[in-house]
Amino acid sequence: MRNLKIIVEYDGSGYHGWQRQEGLTTVQQILEESIGRITREKITVVGSGRTDAGVHALNQSAHFKTSSCIGARNLLLGINSLLPHGVVVKELKEMDGLFHARFDVKSKVYMYQIFNSPVRSALYRNYAWHVRAPLDFCNMEKGLCLLKGIHDFSSFCGKKEDDLNCIRTIKESRLEKAEGDFIRIFLEADGFLRYMVRSIVGTLVEIGGRKRNPDDLPDILAAKDRSRAGITAPPQGVFLMEVKY
Amino acid sequence: MRNLKIIVEYDGSGYHGWQRQEGLTTVQQILEESIGRITREKITVVGSGRTDAGVHALNQSAHFKTSSCIGARNLLLGINSLLPHGVVVKELKEMDGLFHARFDVKSKVYMYQIFNSPVRSALYRNYAWHVRAPLDFCNMEKGLCLLKGIHDFSSFCGKKEDDLNCIRTIKESRLEKAEGDFIRIFLEADGFLRYMVRSIVGTLVEIGGRKRNPDDLPDILAAKDRSRAGITAPPQGVFLMEVKY
Repeated sequence: MRNLKIIVEYDGSGYHGWQRQEGLTTVQQILEESIGRITREKITVVGSGRTDAGVHALNQSAHFKTSSCIGARNLLLGINSLLPHGVVVKELKEMDGLFHARFDVKSKVYMYQIFNSPVRSALYRNYAWHVRAPLDFCNMEKGLCLLKGIHDFSSFCGKKEDDLNCIRTIKESRLEKAEGDFIRIFLEADGFLRYMVRSIVGTLVEIGGRKRNPDDLPDILAAKDRSRAGITAPPQGVFLMEVKY
Repeated sequence: MRNLKIIVEYDGSGYHGWQRQEGLTTVQQILEESIGRITREKITVVGSGRTDAGVHALNQSAHFKTSSCIGARNLLLGINSLLPHGVVVKELKEMDGLFHARFDVKSKVYMYQIFNSPVRSALYRNYAWHVRAPLDFCNMEKGLCLLKGIHDFSSFCGKKEDDLNCIRTIKESRLEKAEGDFIRIFLEADGFLRYMVRSIVGTLVEIGGRKRNPDDLPDILAAKDRSRAGITAPPQGVFLMEVKY
């Protein structure tokens, strides 16, 4: 069996997230169906992890096994010809049989896009969170800085199973002001808990709006209590930028 | 009667262009309906000019007359609360009775976005023209430069009425390579003919793909013949950036 790694871009607007779900259109399902039609097999696509409904990916990684002998380039072209416009395979690469798109992840990079303007945006409505109130960029930067490093991120995790280890390492983080009233938050970690990006961003926006102080963050982390952190930012601002192996 | 100028952003993906058309959803119609519901009048919105189906605007300008006495800020909020997500009024301003959104235009700025990559984009499918073949940026820049100034742009005009004056002045033009395989072409002119932006871009892409030489442009202009220029680039790459008065 060949083991193939794919890098996938998708517009999350039209999909119920990555993970297969009965009766809903998801990216994993669309990929499995398209690849299966080309290779004439039942295909299982294993992603680097799930993304929520509405979340976008510029470079999601996944692998699948096939006994088809179609060459990599033709496979890529064939799959893309069947995929809907909102999903595309950007790369397809032969890996050794041991490569696993989820277990082998070293780190992931997410970007969260905020549109910070009194009036909403027509063009970016599905690609950014519209925050009306002016945000204090400096305070947000301070807050982001305090999250760097190894922490128990229980306070930034959605529904938590009792035995879940919530210790993660934020390796890099960065805030960027971009032309046209955009603020972009970049986060790289060895792994992300469910809703972690969105609850971090929600908390940072409360800090930026002066509802909270950046210096509260160590206490919020120490509390290991989701109710202590801020709101969960909406999904359409999230972009999975890169998965590193 | 008050004379109000509005600046409008819209995502052209969902609309059959700016101009009202029987039985089709257009931006002008959506605006007239929403404003009319707020002011309880029959409203006519006069745009700075039409945009084709699929074309976007970051700052389209228009004016309308009303005898409503609702204050400018509340009018703006009210209109935006009725508009669909793909259209938004960014500014609303009282003008003297003589201001006319079309007749008073000094110049317009358009941007055309090309996604130049062997593989298509899922996220930008409605916001850029996907060109697979590598483009020679330098040659495109040379070509663009030759279009600057006062010319008869008959060769870059769609369906032409016999008596139409096709002399226009391109005041500024610029090519930009942007992160993520994007090429952006900026054009500022005192006016644009129908399909002028799109046929200029189509011709520049043929030049970039080495199917034409930039030095052919003076001959193409001199011919005053649409069939001498390149193809008409697709609408989804066009953005109306600014209307100057």
